[in-house]
Amino acid sequence: MTLFRLDASIRVDGSHSREIADIVEREWLGAYPGNPVIHRHLAVDPIPAGAWATAVGASPVPADQRSPEQLAATELAAQAVDQLVEADALLFAVPLYNFGVSQHFKTWVDLVITDPRMAAGVESAIAGKPAVLVTVRGGSYAAGTPREGWDHATGWMRRILADVWQLDLRVVETEFTLVGVNPALDQFKALAADLRREAEEEARAHGRSLTSAVPAARGTIAA
Amino acid sequence: MTLFRLDASIRVDGSHSREIADIVEREWLGAYPGNPVIHRHLAVDPIPAGAWATAVGASPVPADQRSPEQLAATELAAQAVDQLVEADALLFAVPLYNFGVSQHFKTWVDLVITDPRMAAGVESAIAGKPAVLVTVRGGSYAAGTPREGWDHATGWMRRILADVWQLDLRVVETEFTLVGVNPALDQFKALAADLRREAEEEARAHGRSLTSAVPAARGTIAA
Repeated sequence: MTLFRLDASIRVDGSHSREIADIVEREWLGAYPGNPVIHRHLAVDPIPAGAWATAVGASPVPADQRSPEQLAATELAAQAVDQLVEADALLFAVPLYNFGVSQHFKTWVDLVITDPRMAAGVESAIAGKPAVLVTVRGGSYAAGTPREGWDHATGWMRRILADVWQLDLRVVETEFTLVGVNPALDQFKALAADLRREAEEEARAHGRSLTSAVPAARGTIAA
Repeated sequence: MTLFRLDASIRVDGSHSREIADIVEREWLGAYPGNPVIHRHLAVDPIPAGAWATAVGASPVPADQRSPEQLAATELAAQAVDQLVEADALLFAVPLYNFGVSQHFKTWVDLVITDPRMAAGVESAIAGKPAVLVTVRGGSYAAGTPREGWDHATGWMRRILADVWQLDLRVVETEFTLVGVNPALDQFKALAADLRREAEEEARAHGRSLTSAVPAARGTIAA
């Protein structure tokens, strides 16, 4: 049993999305100890800025007529899709950045969609796979707050992962991760602690459902 | 008088967003013939994938203690902001890609926001400047269509350009640009032609308002 995990935080230490995704991963490893977890650190080892446009340009070109750059870009896309296809469950940890989607995550999604197995109008090669998305926001975007409606990323991520790729998706969201970092938010410490606790509980529950959603017939519990 | 124009289409020929932005640019040049237009082709000459994270990491480091990579990234951000600050009016041509924002445009916005002149909590250095955003979508996202609510980019672009950067923003949107390309959409040819005509009219009107919004005292009409 293999878990594919993608992290898009540009922070390695002190990343809230990584910490919450760690909880999901621990639940997975509790069910499948010693089984492989494939990590992809998108913001530390990002996809080259030109890869997607090159892969799009390559798609109508027969494979034996592609330039070395086109072959490299389509190979990069194929490797990204291989990681998804070969995994039994998927975990995405993607923070909100500047009220929008992580640039590195969008770049990866665009590249994935250039592969014929994940192209528009084709049944997604990963339809039905269990998946968890962890997303975190520094401030509060709750109803009635000044930033209500300013999270322009989570809706798009659900759209791609659940509607387009047809994953069996669960989402853990948490907010106010800048409380304790930004002194202006100190008044919200109790609320932030509550939100964090709820997110951690949800991460555990979603981590468990990730393992139970994998068809039992395919499960091989290591000793 | 200077116009800054940013294009995010990955296509050079046959790009609808470029064609509509050309109309806006022609209106500008009609009012200010011979005046400079600074072009930035984001998808042809993209920002390196690691620049933003490096610039974020550099921000707390005193300038004289930054690594060469950090200096390069902060310089890239400063140059991007210089282009905005030095322009009298701004034109952005950004297509919808995979129901979300252009990866290259998000990467550029993230980088711009690392510069102290455009940082969160600071009055934007370009507040009040007249700007036009041209955005195009291949399908239809109109109310009542299957893709209603699937445009997850335009809301975020308005958020950044109008609400965060406080530009005096006008938006030209058009849809169904894949009609004539995708045979499955041939039934919508008349509608697509109408939408295109409306967008072109709007582009002319917004192009004119772009020139009239520039304070007359700063205008120097070249002969």
